[in-house]
Amino acid sequence: MAARKAVEVYLDLLSQPCRAVQIFLRSTKIPHTVKMVALRKGEHQTPEFAKLNPMKKVPVMVDNGFVLTESDAILKYLANTYNAPEHWYPRQPERRAKVDEYTAWHHSYTRPHAAKVFILEVLLPRMTGQPTEPAKIEKALVELGDTLEKLEAMFLKRQPFLCGDDITLADLLCICELMQPFGGGRDILQDHPQLLTWRSRVQSALKGSFDEAHSVLYRLRDKAKPKL
Amino acid sequence: MAARKAVEVYLDLLSQPCRAVQIFLRSTKIPHTVKMVALRKGEHQTPEFAKLNPMKKVPVMVDNGFVLTESDAILKYLANTYNAPEHWYPRQPERRAKVDEYTAWHHSYTRPHAAKVFILEVLLPRMTGQPTEPAKIEKALVELGDTLEKLEAMFLKRQPFLCGDDITLADLLCICELMQPFGGGRDILQDHPQLLTWRSRVQSALKGSFDEAHSVLYRLRDKAKPKL
Repeated sequence: MAARKAVEVYLDLLSQPCRAVQIFLRSTKIPHTVKMVALRKGEHQTPEFAKLNPMKKVPVMVDNGFVLTESDAILKYLANTYNAPEHWYPRQPERRAKVDEYTAWHHSYTRPHAAKVFILEVLLPRMTGQPTEPAKIEKALVELGDTLEKLEAMFLKRQPFLCGDDITLADLLCICELMQPFGGGRDILQDHPQLLTWRSRVQSALKGSFDEAHSVLYRLRDKAKPKL
Repeated sequence: MAARKAVEVYLDLLSQPCRAVQIFLRSTKIPHTVKMVALRKGEHQTPEFAKLNPMKKVPVMVDNGFVLTESDAILKYLANTYNAPEHWYPRQPERRAKVDEYTAWHHSYTRPHAAKVFILEVLLPRMTGQPTEPAKIEKALVELGDTLEKLEAMFLKRQPFLCGDDITLADLLCICELMQPFGGGRDILQDHPQLLTWRSRVQSALKGSFDEAHSVLYRLRDKAKPKL
């Protein structure tokens, strides 16, 4: 029988869910190989990559020939298969269900609303050479603000992490999305003290793996022109 | 110790994910009580309901005091907790991961794109008394067509069900969304023979619980004016 190969992951660290996958692998010390797929160079558009993921998106995981897409599914698979510390994706049914509840919610709220601010402030201006109309950014910020309030009311409440007393996959997916507008120099949590405290707590729990995964985003922020 | 109460679910069967939850409970014969929440009467807007779900949305599940929202999480919790037949949400890690992969994808593709056609063709005209501009419906149908092609390429491929040889939670969530435009008399699968065959297969697997859950949608369709 052939030896089991290390998990392979295809990532671009400017992608929010890719950062979540890398942080999880580093934090849990699951042996892995990272293959960088530079989205800005169109490396996800090649026929070879489309064979791996017909959606032409990152992240993709390959574990001994088993190909999996969708960060949510990849993280849960890795937690289940590699016996990650219990707190990440608890086996107790109610606690696991609360993580599944957040990850389902995440796709309809946190992810699209935080991503939209980044797309309007950073991606579109780079692609078109034109700044986005301020009214469009304002509208996206109002929608995101509404999502942040719901995030506090539905999940954070008065507990330290989104799903209880310890960090889970929910916090990891969430924080990577909420960091994205930093790429345009914007801290969307500045008026949300409860979420700011939560973010510090998540960063402390993740130690160096958080800053390592976000270094590309920080460089993008530092290159952005200062806002007037 | 008090006896365990039957699972309670708060549903409106005009909601796609509510139908998925009801079909699952009926198919698996998990003892349950259905509490109907009529969205058209605003019964989800009451303070009592907001206490149960601050998002003011259905479905909501209550299992012996444990409150859970998000159909995706509810179905997985029920499958895990009530030992539903293995095929619904397999415990084998790769097979479970394929179900998780689809359910994550579902939130960004199948659900919003199929729902949009129903909203434009049925809900908005009822609310405003004005028909939607045909160009808007056409655009939504093109986007949905693209999602249906991806559904075939990414998931169905040449296998009988979305995640393999047997029906899973993925098929259940998916079919309930793809049925929704029927409410306006539109069969969005008519030009997709592979998905039509899949739909028949899913309907056969679900037996009477499928038509029971869809009866309200069929009544809505029958009330709709015939298309010219």
